[in-house]
Amino acid sequence: MNNISLSAFTEMYKNLLEEELKKNVETLGAPTNLKDSMLYSLNAGGKRIRPLLLFATIHAYGKDPLKGLLPATAIEMIHTYSLIHDDLPSMDDDDLRRGLPTNHKVYGEATAILAGDALLTYSFQLMTNMTEQNIPAEIIITTISLLAEAAGAEGMVGGQVADIEGENKVLNQRELEQIHLHKTGKLLEVSITIGAILAGATSTEIKTLKQFAYHLGLAFQIRDDILDLEGDEAIIGKPVGSDMDNDKSTYPKILTMDGAKRELDVHIKQAKDHLAGLHLDSALLEAITDLIADRNN
Amino acid sequence: MNNISLSAFTEMYKNLLEEELKKNVETLGAPTNLKDSMLYSLNAGGKRIRPLLLFATIHAYGKDPLKGLLPATAIEMIHTYSLIHDDLPSMDDDDLRRGLPTNHKVYGEATAILAGDALLTYSFQLMTNMTEQNIPAEIIITTISLLAEAAGAEGMVGGQVADIEGENKVLNQRELEQIHLHKTGKLLEVSITIGAILAGATSTEIKTLKQFAYHLGLAFQIRDDILDLEGDEAIIGKPVGSDMDNDKSTYPKILTMDGAKRELDVHIKQAKDHLAGLHLDSALLEAITDLIADRNN
Repeated sequence: MNNISLSAFTEMYKNLLEEELKKNVETLGAPTNLKDSMLYSLNAGGKRIRPLLLFATIHAYGKDPLKGLLPATAIEMIHTYSLIHDDLPSMDDDDLRRGLPTNHKVYGEATAILAGDALLTYSFQLMTNMTEQNIPAEIIITTISLLAEAAGAEGMVGGQVADIEGENKVLNQRELEQIHLHKTGKLLEVSITIGAILAGATSTEIKTLKQFAYHLGLAFQIRDDILDLEGDEAIIGKPVGSDMDNDKSTYPKILTMDGAKRELDVHIKQAKDHLAGLHLDSALLEAITDLIADRNN
Repeated sequence: MNNISLSAFTEMYKNLLEEELKKNVETLGAPTNLKDSMLYSLNAGGKRIRPLLLFATIHAYGKDPLKGLLPATAIEMIHTYSLIHDDLPSMDDDDLRRGLPTNHKVYGEATAILAGDALLTYSFQLMTNMTEQNIPAEIIITTISLLAEAAGAEGMVGGQVADIEGENKVLNQRELEQIHLHKTGKLLEVSITIGAILAGATSTEIKTLKQFAYHLGLAFQIRDDILDLEGDEAIIGKPVGSDMDNDKSTYPKILTMDGAKRELDVHIKQAKDHLAGLHLDSALLEAITDLIADRNN
């Protein structure tokens, strides 16, 4: 188990996560159309990078990653709700997501908004189910608080508002970073933090893991901006250059494409340096970092 | 204190609640426009009926209502987010709410959706702050779970989906009741249940309080439907007859106006009967019940 490859680890835990996502929604006593809309976006695939980070962090401490199955599922539900709402006509107005029609294109705007609301709400119910795993109540409450903070006005939602406000404005690198640290960084970070808390990490270790998460989050976004220009449309599942058309500030625009690639390398190196300082069994976290640097979708 | 009138009780706890709502949002480290949009709807007034029910339930047990300040604030935030999302063009498409322009009319659709998302998310963070009041962690987790259930796919959000699906359909009384029990009933019920749990109620008492909440919730909705036809536009804050224009199923349409008024009386009587069976100091809960039967907005 300790020398498991990232692909074997991903295969195993991605399947368990996807089962858990499905099972929880299918058994809800709720209107069929709402459940279908929730499942549509949950089942639309994706890298499941947040759950994998959570599982891999627990694994780095030699603990059973399944201890984090419920928060990993909750975080993926929050990520999914954010994509549904971001795609809406009044936000990014996207018709395609991962090569499939976006939720509101299939279920209509009202149901898409409500499916997002239901996923967000249910994620907190899932967190409370950790009591069934004999996780101490105080720890469960701490993780719920951190998750709400990362997902809300001071985290992801605030980042989305800042992102919208930044459209059609020329942002400098610092402003762009602040947006992404909130819009995508906070949820990546909390996946790692919750994994660490469940694994019994010290507060010093958690601080270092947050530094790791900081650089990982920025690397993730820089790679996203690069892919938007150099990616294969069939693989990224949306038109190439759509950010450029939008007049959106991106790393390649601010730093040039070469500059963006150098910046990506810097953050990947710094992420790995923080990780190495921890002396954990962090091969999987390192492999996920490489994956983020090299991903093609 | 034990013989306090409902108006004195309301005055006192409504002010404390409104302070708490404001303080929590104002101190958020989030984009100003997002906070303004959240505050706009939180400050738009309203009866604060859910917080009052929560406070009055604790008071009925002779305990300090302020024990429930955080969940009362969380529930009012959830209620407020649901109004913001319900008013959106893709849902009820309302321009006015309590006599003021709706949130999206002032802040635009994107910000309105995100303000709703932020309020919903923050409500769960608030629930975790109950640890500062020395409320046992297990009880906090139970109340978070109940709140998420009441607000989500199996509760309020599911009811809103069913309500949309029921538009332009002729519903029977049973179908109409099921919609309202979810759309408005569950959040009213959980306000009472959480109050009861914090006051140390037995599970038998909680069962009876849920019966009370059941009839109170239906009475609330029947009165709403009656007001839509007989209310004073200046007081209800929206055009009279707007449900009728929508081809929406309502109690007066299904039962005639006289029949709806009789049905309202039946539920008010049953609510009071359940309350009387509990032998609590329930004068305030009874006064709120009368208020719901007679309210003119």
